[in-house]
Amino acid sequence: MFQTFTTPSTPETGAARLAQLRTALSQRGIEGFLVPRSDAHQGENVAPHDERLAWLTGFTGSAGFCVVLQDSAGVFVDGRYTLQVRKQIDLSAFTPQSLVNDKLSEWLLARLPEGARIGYDPMLHTVAELEALESALEGKLSLCPTENPIDAIWRDQPAPPTGKITPYPIEFAGVSSAEKRVQLATTLRDNDLCASVLTLPDSICWLLNIRGSDIVRAPLVLAFAILHDDARVDLFTDPRKASPELLDHLGDQVTLHPNEAFQPALNALKSRVGIDKKTAPIWVCNQIQHPVNHPDPCVLPKARKNPAELAGTRTAHRRDAVAMCEFLAWLAQADHSGLTEIDVVTRLESFRRNTNALTDISFDTICGAGPNGAIVHYRVDDSSNAELVQDSLLLVDSGGQYLDGTTDITRTVAIGQPDHDMIRAFTLVLQGMINLSMLRWPRGLSGQEIDAMARAPLWAAGFDYDHGTGHGVGAYLGVHEGPASISRRGTVALDPGMILSNEPGYYRENAWGIRIENLVVVTPPETPEGGDRAMLGFETLTWVPIDRALIDPTQLTPVQQDWLNSYHRAVFEMVSPHVSPATLDWLQRACAPV
Amino acid sequence: MFQTFTTPSTPETGAARLAQLRTALSQRGIEGFLVPRSDAHQGENVAPHDERLAWLTGFTGSAGFCVVLQDSAGVFVDGRYTLQVRKQIDLSAFTPQSLVNDKLSEWLLARLPEGARIGYDPMLHTVAELEALESALEGKLSLCPTENPIDAIWRDQPAPPTGKITPYPIEFAGVSSAEKRVQLATTLRDNDLCASVLTLPDSICWLLNIRGSDIVRAPLVLAFAILHDDARVDLFTDPRKASPELLDHLGDQVTLHPNEAFQPALNALKSRVGIDKKTAPIWVCNQIQHPVNHPDPCVLPKARKNPAELAGTRTAHRRDAVAMCEFLAWLAQADHSGLTEIDVVTRLESFRRNTNALTDISFDTICGAGPNGAIVHYRVDDSSNAELVQDSLLLVDSGGQYLDGTTDITRTVAIGQPDHDMIRAFTLVLQGMINLSMLRWPRGLSGQEIDAMARAPLWAAGFDYDHGTGHGVGAYLGVHEGPASISRRGTVALDPGMILSNEPGYYRENAWGIRIENLVVVTPPETPEGGDRAMLGFETLTWVPIDRALIDPTQLTPVQQDWLNSYHRAVFEMVSPHVSPATLDWLQRACAPV
Repeated sequence: MFQTFTTPSTPETGAARLAQLRTALSQRGIEGFLVPRSDAHQGENVAPHDERLAWLTGFTGSAGFCVVLQDSAGVFVDGRYTLQVRKQIDLSAFTPQSLVNDKLSEWLLARLPEGARIGYDPMLHTVAELEALESALEGKLSLCPTENPIDAIWRDQPAPPTGKITPYPIEFAGVSSAEKRVQLATTLRDNDLCASVLTLPDSICWLLNIRGSDIVRAPLVLAFAILHDDARVDLFTDPRKASPELLDHLGDQVTLHPNEAFQPALNALKSRVGIDKKTAPIWVCNQIQHPVNHPDPCVLPKARKNPAELAGTRTAHRRDAVAMCEFLAWLAQADHSGLTEIDVVTRLESFRRNTNALTDISFDTICGAGPNGAIVHYRVDDSSNAELVQDSLLLVDSGGQYLDGTTDITRTVAIGQPDHDMIRAFTLVLQGMINLSMLRWPRGLSGQEIDAMARAPLWAAGFDYDHGTGHGVGAYLGVHEGPASISRRGTVALDPGMILSNEPGYYRENAWGIRIENLVVVTPPETPEGGDRAMLGFETLTWVPIDRALIDPTQLTPVQQDWLNSYHRAVFEMVSPHVSPATLDWLQRACAPV
Repeated sequence: MFQTFTTPSTPETGAARLAQLRTALSQRGIEGFLVPRSDAHQGENVAPHDERLAWLTGFTGSAGFCVVLQDSAGVFVDGRYTLQVRKQIDLSAFTPQSLVNDKLSEWLLARLPEGARIGYDPMLHTVAELEALESALEGKLSLCPTENPIDAIWRDQPAPPTGKITPYPIEFAGVSSAEKRVQLATTLRDNDLCASVLTLPDSICWLLNIRGSDIVRAPLVLAFAILHDDARVDLFTDPRKASPELLDHLGDQVTLHPNEAFQPALNALKSRVGIDKKTAPIWVCNQIQHPVNHPDPCVLPKARKNPAELAGTRTAHRRDAVAMCEFLAWLAQADHSGLTEIDVVTRLESFRRNTNALTDISFDTICGAGPNGAIVHYRVDDSSNAELVQDSLLLVDSGGQYLDGTTDITRTVAIGQPDHDMIRAFTLVLQGMINLSMLRWPRGLSGQEIDAMARAPLWAAGFDYDHGTGHGVGAYLGVHEGPASISRRGTVALDPGMILSNEPGYYRENAWGIRIENLVVVTPPETPEGGDRAMLGFETLTWVPIDRALIDPTQLTPVQQDWLNSYHRAVFEMVSPHVSPATLDWLQRACAPV
């Protein structure tokens, strides 16, 4: 079982650890210290070695930070974690703060005398982050890089991970690492850069066609790399992760070095070096003589999947669809009395494991029964675990990591008899999801220009959802991948080959939640019959029935109804040959026309 | 008759004038000179005194500029004017250039030796424009402010206008100038500014509740003003424009000065002064000791119309609708053989004049028969004037200035028997127009986030249009008013009270053009029945039938069909009491349900 449900928080140790940290700060002569949740690679998941924020405060959310001063300690979290943080931290030692409303700079300036020194670990903060904070402090406080005092006082801190690195087969990667490196080296030379420093694990994995096992939920290698303008790469990570097979795969243009070699290698770069200020640690920037802000050159080509990556992704989705259908069929006939969210999550993971191809789940399954479904980022654990709510909804958002691709799907199903409000809202969400699926648009548009298509049916009814409509998805990499998104913040053009989620929702607080999510890929420009301009569009990747018990067909336009019925027809054709007889019966009913 | 149709260009004088200008440049020791179309106020229309570009080159488009060097002279125009410019200028003297593809800085650098000096009139270029050009030239050429050499050689240059200024009645303005000035003075103090320099005529007219008659198509006063942080205003313009009644209206907190007083008044400002870099002449910036870039404080409150402005606008639109219906009824029964575009424009203006309330047309009517309809910014003149094309389309985009409001409407009508392609495309354009009219959305969204709603039906068919979906419209001010728009460039939030056009289109080159345009106003936040969030929406202002002969009802969704039929019902109720008996017959048929 990949997912665990133990309540991981230890609020009772917070006060003592905080006292130790304050002593360490006094010894260093600094008045405060920043403890972010992130590691040096700004990823969504961090290794146990890097769980400093949770170790200190007890807070285990995926974003946030703590600021420790001698007489106060604020834990800054966003709206998702307002309730969770209060349960996980010792409120007599730490004070929850809102990431949105309580500006860190103002919080610091209100509590510290002018000239006070705030320490930070320069590996854990990006250049952009530090520059923004520095400018907001207007020179009234100084920010001081320091060795991490938590690492000094955390006696049983787990070691950094040494997960094995494996070559990623060319049949899935599609393009050789050599070809990718030569291509990007041209970009560097065009921009008058002698090198580009890569600090994002998924960029490095994509560029070198490797995958790792350093952290959960994504097959990433925690590493740094320097791409030179002659297409050579220096890779910095723990050499214990390597095998002879890997070295052979990397070839003589890619050199593996231990982590300690990173600093001298950066120091040795003489002319202009590209670093991505939004993601590179400030430490990296400080080691370079001529740093130039330049976006990580892997990000865009990685997001535009090649035909092999798309073929793999399609296969992974068909496999995942079979597991999802077995799961939904099981859920439909299960005795719901006494069945809990953890039972559901466990069962779903076992259906995915039955594919014999699952390398991990792509994120901890979100499974919210009744009111828990309205908590957008709900993760069930032993203390929150609820039984399914009769005559209500169950929201299940989950995904798998397979060697050939990464999946992410949300289905909301009726448990018992749904009422009119549930059906109306579900159908509105479905209409938005269908409108976006069917959209054609001219090349060059970004996600913020089409986000409204998925929301308009909800808006007309006075509803909305407080999250983006879609995020990028990797090819056997992170389930959340930049740079494009379909949201108000999505300013990057949607290019052919980009895989995105299409997941509108609606959440009725304390009652139930609805989300419907398919993954889609942007299709190449094509001129519709009789048209005069080429248009992009979406190809759907996810093939799992949408609960007909929750759809009011009279709310749909004829075109939306056609889309739904053809979708279900395609689901049946694709999945039916591969399911058990019991599931086949269910599938037939689930795919009947509305 | 406001509109004229004489071909205004005089290409044959270009060569001689160019030679004179070159002599003047030599005498001043500068290697080149920039001749923009704009005046000091960056407006859409300029006074005859400021038609320097047309005088020199013959080119009369509404945007563009000429760069004169000793051995070449480029006339830079955008895509709208590519054909027109070649007809209007002497191609042996001037070379047409593309505003989009031929970057001015590169054009200059390719033709001049390093260190060469380019002159410009500092009154005619904005701060932002000059800064951008300066930075693109990278110090290789120098830009030198100079007195305008064209004014020196243009013997019969018309005098600057001295149009009378009249008070704008409070019943239409809604809020007194004193109240507006006190409100804005607070904004200045909040931003630590002692004053703000206003250079936009519509800002000044709005702030002082005055209207003018200096230029055609908009009741503007060409003037500058300084708003002080104590709510006083110094107004600079030709005193001959004033009357005792005006001085009485302005009161003792607003002081009228002659133009010559502007420079010393700017020089006298000691502390931080706000100027809007995007619109203020660089000359203004150079006169101020502590200029600070600060958006023109009138722009946003002017765009958010108050209840009195909206009431006036609604009245103006109902009046304009009667004129438009009389016009369309006349057109429907007219003998089309031999009828020309100019006949149609003349007739339409006469129907508007018959209201006895028309103070001007709000822009030169665009009237394109058949292929001319596909030229987005087509303006008929004697040389282009075409007869209506049988079994094709006629596109008519026009508007009126009335004391209580400004209108802008496009209707496309069938002449004879429309074919299947015309009907299909017209219905797609209509679907986009209706989708946007019906849209509800949460506060805070900008035009670029909803632009796709109007285009999606066209995109699905492989069609699109190369202009924005909507522009802001003034309240008895300019028919094009910032800062909001519904387009890919629309980044300003759409606020309640903003009046915008909703005008999708489709243009089949060399065949016909379609545009359907209503004005709409953003409505205050309101929670739809059963919803949980407040939504903004649009109230339609324009009440004129949409040609039923061009609509395929089977293409519409039931909701779109309902919108259209209720729209036509409302048109009939509003307009029918005020039209002639013959028009009433036509109106009845034109408003019948589809």
